[in-house]
Amino acid sequence: MDLHVSLVGRKDLSGEIYRQLRRAILEDRLRPGDALPPTRVLARGLGVSRTTATLAYERLAGEGFVTSRVGAGTFVSERVARVPKDAATRRARPVDKEALRPRRIWDSIPIPTAFDRPAAFDFRSGLPDASLFPHRAWRRVMARALREDSAVSGGVYGHPAGHRGLREAIARHIGIARGVTASPDDVVVTSGTQQALDLIARVLLSPGDTVAVEDPGYPPPRRLFTSLGARVHHVPVDADGLMVDALPRHTRLVYVTPSHQYPLGMSMTLSRRVALLAWAERHHAAIIEDDYDSEFRFGGRPIEPLQTLDSAGRVVYVGSFSKTLLPTLRLGFVVTPPSLSKAVYKAKHVTDWHTSMLAQAALARFIDEGGFARHIRRVGAVYRMRHAMITATLMREFAGRLDVIPSAAGLHVAATARASADQVAAIASRAADAGVAVQELSKFAAGAAWRSGLLLGFGAIATGHIEEGLRRLRACFR
Amino acid sequence: MDLHVSLVGRKDLSGEIYRQLRRAILEDRLRPGDALPPTRVLARGLGVSRTTATLAYERLAGEGFVTSRVGAGTFVSERVARVPKDAATRRARPVDKEALRPRRIWDSIPIPTAFDRPAAFDFRSGLPDASLFPHRAWRRVMARALREDSAVSGGVYGHPAGHRGLREAIARHIGIARGVTASPDDVVVTSGTQQALDLIARVLLSPGDTVAVEDPGYPPPRRLFTSLGARVHHVPVDADGLMVDALPRHTRLVYVTPSHQYPLGMSMTLSRRVALLAWAERHHAAIIEDDYDSEFRFGGRPIEPLQTLDSAGRVVYVGSFSKTLLPTLRLGFVVTPPSLSKAVYKAKHVTDWHTSMLAQAALARFIDEGGFARHIRRVGAVYRMRHAMITATLMREFAGRLDVIPSAAGLHVAATARASADQVAAIASRAADAGVAVQELSKFAAGAAWRSGLLLGFGAIATGHIEEGLRRLRACFR
Repeated sequence: MDLHVSLVGRKDLSGEIYRQLRRAILEDRLRPGDALPPTRVLARGLGVSRTTATLAYERLAGEGFVTSRVGAGTFVSERVARVPKDAATRRARPVDKEALRPRRIWDSIPIPTAFDRPAAFDFRSGLPDASLFPHRAWRRVMARALREDSAVSGGVYGHPAGHRGLREAIARHIGIARGVTASPDDVVVTSGTQQALDLIARVLLSPGDTVAVEDPGYPPPRRLFTSLGARVHHVPVDADGLMVDALPRHTRLVYVTPSHQYPLGMSMTLSRRVALLAWAERHHAAIIEDDYDSEFRFGGRPIEPLQTLDSAGRVVYVGSFSKTLLPTLRLGFVVTPPSLSKAVYKAKHVTDWHTSMLAQAALARFIDEGGFARHIRRVGAVYRMRHAMITATLMREFAGRLDVIPSAAGLHVAATARASADQVAAIASRAADAGVAVQELSKFAAGAAWRSGLLLGFGAIATGHIEEGLRRLRACFR
Repeated sequence: MDLHVSLVGRKDLSGEIYRQLRRAILEDRLRPGDALPPTRVLARGLGVSRTTATLAYERLAGEGFVTSRVGAGTFVSERVARVPKDAATRRARPVDKEALRPRRIWDSIPIPTAFDRPAAFDFRSGLPDASLFPHRAWRRVMARALREDSAVSGGVYGHPAGHRGLREAIARHIGIARGVTASPDDVVVTSGTQQALDLIARVLLSPGDTVAVEDPGYPPPRRLFTSLGARVHHVPVDADGLMVDALPRHTRLVYVTPSHQYPLGMSMTLSRRVALLAWAERHHAAIIEDDYDSEFRFGGRPIEPLQTLDSAGRVVYVGSFSKTLLPTLRLGFVVTPPSLSKAVYKAKHVTDWHTSMLAQAALARFIDEGGFARHIRRVGAVYRMRHAMITATLMREFAGRLDVIPSAAGLHVAATARASADQVAAIASRAADAGVAVQELSKFAAGAAWRSGLLLGFGAIATGHIEEGLRRLRACFR
């Protein structure tokens, strides 16, 4: 009998014996009917106690690998179907890297990279200032939610649409801050904007359907729509926002950022908004209004959200707490028109049941008690200052090189460059070497002919670093 | 927070401000006691003169909508008659309830109901005992994660595969507790089991592909697969587990619960496991092994997970913290074979970027510091007692009526009934009237001919209530 058991060290000897015998059975080295050595023989041979060997045998018997017959001994079971000889166990050989083939569509989705690329002068967009996060207040509301909120600690799954108190708080908040008309029943809490888009897309899009996105625009939604089998059509943006006339006729869904176009930063004009709504009505299309960072306003008058202007129920409004609080919390929401609310709610349920109740309950309290409004006012003043500093410095020190695109909200400023996209890429690369992280506008464009420029976020950079950061960036233009 | 007022044109700006504020008050978006922004702040935000804003405030005050307190500010009055709440929200605009048409597939997905149906004697399955949740310890690890963990408070989006420390902790935990062989790089943290299934399905399934599920089986995965356009095929389960011979030939994906079949409760035998693996290899199919509650074991030796027996890289292992901690935390994970890891990781990214980092960081600490293992031991002893009580009482008091299906793990026991499914439904209904919540086995079966029976969970019921609960249930059999 080819039974080789080798023991190294003194830890879990019984487990080691069990594993080696099991592998021998699975690999057909021990065959049905083969007798195992008596435990006393094996124990002596290996220099272990008889109990150690007995435990290993009992485990094998419990799993059906071996059978004991009184007065006869222990035998490999007849009924164990064996793994093919060359297969052996997982540990014994490297597992086939092509055993399962993902859908081909995933080949076209890039692997996400660079989730944390710290730079001394970090002008990346889309990130809030984590040092302004109200840690103490948040710990307090979380501790209380965990202690007192039965939706958190009741031990039952929550409502797919979200924590009732949070849905009420969100409806009030967006009513006051954004002029969005919504009842709590229209609100579904999501794990961030990206999931809100996923739910809407799953509800509306069949493979092959056309989705229109802004060009230049925000990449993650494009990747999502592509992964669901949709045809993504890039529609150019001009100074007024998405060019409605360029929308393809059979578009089922239009994804836009009207309050603060990403990445260019301007607001969609009222006439363009009205035109987009009329277009959607004429073509039976849906509109996603992604209002990702417009809680921070620095002047001018906000234009009514598409959601409020919409009289036909074609707009789905999406909001996020990633910019006002922290992206790592993964909290956002969608305001659905009546025709979609049931399906969005079902989609949330089959996708992940509901978003973490603890974070929802904590946020509900934070909003209700006024902590959120105070936080927005406090950090809004900081961002206003940074926005003004960057805008003023770009206009003064980068004149003739960069043209600032006027913006009055959000966490970033964009500027078009007179240099070519290649030259801007070289500048961004030199900037990175100098410890300055900036993003190139052309990276957000699908059309290769799009103008070059830079995107300067001010959420991740301390106010005191902005001047030096821009000084270094300026030096890279030489 | 900015109060949202939008001004268009240059005419009667003061009147426009007045009207919009009045409407906000009437619609309860501004509530009694709420402070209006100081006129100077509002004026600056809207780009109007301070006089314009002051005029609007004076008009509102003159009509009793707001009250000014010297040195404090302007507040919404207490006694304003408001528009009835239901009328307020959707304003005047009639919104078309059929404006947008969800994909037809959603019509076939039921609306989730009954997320909280408290019963005095709650034998529902799939719920842990929330009163055993380690509240204090959890608050402590959360507070520390929020304060000290840069992956939480760094302000940048996290890694789609999850918190590094948690992936390491999970790989260790399942290696020890479940015998699963995984490196941290094989682990993707998800927002619960349901999302893990969603990611795998999105990666593998094209519309029209066949998915095999157990019959009887767990309904949420079936709904998910259906919503993605897959053909769901129900494969019968016998005492040994899924009947491998009954799998349709073109199955792309098999979803199974081998450790503790849901709902029947037995474990899939070793020979059936080996047969399933061989079948998958022959037919180029993938297997999802959902190991949802087997941390709680009450005797016998666990059989090796499919994942460990798999030498061909066809098994995706899915685990959850919903049963060991709380379902409302929404924390689970997937262990991917090498051929799928990149695509699963991309799918997580396009779906919702990553799961909440705070909960992940807290759980990583909880596992690392031994709190999780202690918790499992502590609550495992409680569940073991309940499992024994229910099993013994069913065998003793329900003999001739119910036949207990032997089980040695998890949070529920199943028993087949000699009565018909209709009779069992009547019993369950009488039990509900007597304050006893039980689930009917036939509700989990797709084939109408499936045997009748009951499912008795013991996560949600206190040990001291079990005896009386079963006594009442017994009375319903008359």
